[in-house]
Amino acid sequence: MSSNIKLGIVGFGNLGKGAAKAIKATSDLDLVAVFTRREPESLNINEPGVQAVHIDHAEDYQSAIDVMLLCGGSATDLPEQTPHFASMFNTVNSYDTHAKIPEFYQTVNDAAANHQTTAIISVGWDPGLFSINRVMADAILPEGKSYSFWGEGLSQGHSDAVRRVNGVKNGVQYTIPSEEAIEQVRSGANPELSKSDKHRRVCYVVAEENADKAAIEQEIKTMPNYFADYHTDVHFISDEELERDHAKAPHGGFIIKSGQTGSTNQQLYEFSLALDSNPEFTASVLVAYARAAFRLSQEKQFGAKTVYDVAPSYISPLSGEALRRDYL
Amino acid sequence: MSSNIKLGIVGFGNLGKGAAKAIKATSDLDLVAVFTRREPESLNINEPGVQAVHIDHAEDYQSAIDVMLLCGGSATDLPEQTPHFASMFNTVNSYDTHAKIPEFYQTVNDAAANHQTTAIISVGWDPGLFSINRVMADAILPEGKSYSFWGEGLSQGHSDAVRRVNGVKNGVQYTIPSEEAIEQVRSGANPELSKSDKHRRVCYVVAEENADKAAIEQEIKTMPNYFADYHTDVHFISDEELERDHAKAPHGGFIIKSGQTGSTNQQLYEFSLALDSNPEFTASVLVAYARAAFRLSQEKQFGAKTVYDVAPSYISPLSGEALRRDYL
Repeated sequence: MSSNIKLGIVGFGNLGKGAAKAIKATSDLDLVAVFTRREPESLNINEPGVQAVHIDHAEDYQSAIDVMLLCGGSATDLPEQTPHFASMFNTVNSYDTHAKIPEFYQTVNDAAANHQTTAIISVGWDPGLFSINRVMADAILPEGKSYSFWGEGLSQGHSDAVRRVNGVKNGVQYTIPSEEAIEQVRSGANPELSKSDKHRRVCYVVAEENADKAAIEQEIKTMPNYFADYHTDVHFISDEELERDHAKAPHGGFIIKSGQTGSTNQQLYEFSLALDSNPEFTASVLVAYARAAFRLSQEKQFGAKTVYDVAPSYISPLSGEALRRDYL
Repeated sequence: MSSNIKLGIVGFGNLGKGAAKAIKATSDLDLVAVFTRREPESLNINEPGVQAVHIDHAEDYQSAIDVMLLCGGSATDLPEQTPHFASMFNTVNSYDTHAKIPEFYQTVNDAAANHQTTAIISVGWDPGLFSINRVMADAILPEGKSYSFWGEGLSQGHSDAVRRVNGVKNGVQYTIPSEEAIEQVRSGANPELSKSDKHRRVCYVVAEENADKAAIEQEIKTMPNYFADYHTDVHFISDEELERDHAKAPHGGFIIKSGQTGSTNQQLYEFSLALDSNPEFTASVLVAYARAAFRLSQEKQFGAKTVYDVAPSYISPLSGEALRRDYL
């Protein structure tokens, strides 16, 4: 029997599908089953040996699965599912409602600590890798400022907002970081930048037949919170163009810390991602952190953890000896 | 009495001086004393309350110092000093002879484990932050290749080699990464690149009076290991120009991982540094990891550790609660 770490996936949307692909690309992790609220037979997993199981039967898999990857959404799925699954399994999730993380952490920590499981929350790239770099840059360079830029990338929340506008049949929104702002930061000027100084927004909209395009454009551009404070461009395109040019979910961004040491030396620290597929990359991060959830639980480090609590070696398939010899 | 972590510095060259400045920029760390092989009175520390002490008296400071920063060189100082100090103190060092790290780790681990201290070795940016990013990128994106580029920066070893050439009075060498190679990597082409494909070398040389400049240039360009395999430019300058334009020690570089997920999606992961002062930045990393050495020793995690064994929260001055609330 393989000594691989045994994984399950809960939810088989874009993130869950990405996780299945990411597990397949490893040699130390095995996917055992995918759990769904839908009819299990309706899933198209296409992996020999991987079962599709109704989510209500997950508890039967407690001895077969080492870590469960929770691939639902942050709005309703994860707040409900995470404490539930943390009572039975080690878990990893990508909960990304930044403002509610402290509360979510507390709830999950109670469930995981009570049932002696390890739950790594808010894993991905932001929250996730970007969070790590914000903390490390500030720890190393206390003097100076950290900046987060997002994009160029497709924002799901803003695309949803565009699609809710009257007369809009379909549409997507891209967040685009300001090259000018990035250059200002890299120069060491430590500028004060508002959100709208750092990013602009571009919408590609398919209008309903006979819709008033000027009214749509006006409504998008003046939408509070989402667009009103930004420079926003709206382009009208056809169904075919939307499908041809905007079917992927690219994203990425930059963490830039411009710090000072001594009295005069500028030290520039930068981390960036440019992703063809946001859900596939996020899923790949979740899968790597499944190793950490398993290892922490083996060490009886139970309760809720974040990426801040995980040393780099815990997400690697390699031994400490190999890492020191080949990577250090 | 302050609850700050108490630090000592061994060695007061560029790295040790950088460490003193970096400690001063924090509010949770205090510098207690600097230890030297020179006459302690000859040190110009200029910090009220910080003692200059002969290295032979370090053992008297075991109860006054929580972590000792070893700021000597990797060639002879650290192999000798690290096991010695690890028998008395928690330590952090920047040992950077990559090929000998496994052996060094073993020696330090024996000393630290026997004396119940924590020794974090090979801390800095390479080895250090670059090492972390190589491992994390490969753990998250197993398909694809990682590339390390160094520069633009002043290389101490290559500058020393230039200065040993007959007829050379003084000189410096800059390592310059190939923009073309970086662009190839970012494009996702996963090229095979030799060292000389990735970097070129530029030397600024002050010749002795009446020296044969053509012979100097020829000897530098054909020097095995250091220059023969690279495109190398040699510029002759005056003493004044050397002092005016080349007195700083800038450095930096890039870690770029071009990975694939699914079958077609390119995922670009990049970490970079552009440093005005290599020793001040390296010292700032050492100082941040002193927090980790202290905390690991409090948890009785004794022995040798590397950056791979240290979770991000351990190097931050902030609490887990503050990190989750403000940074995640």
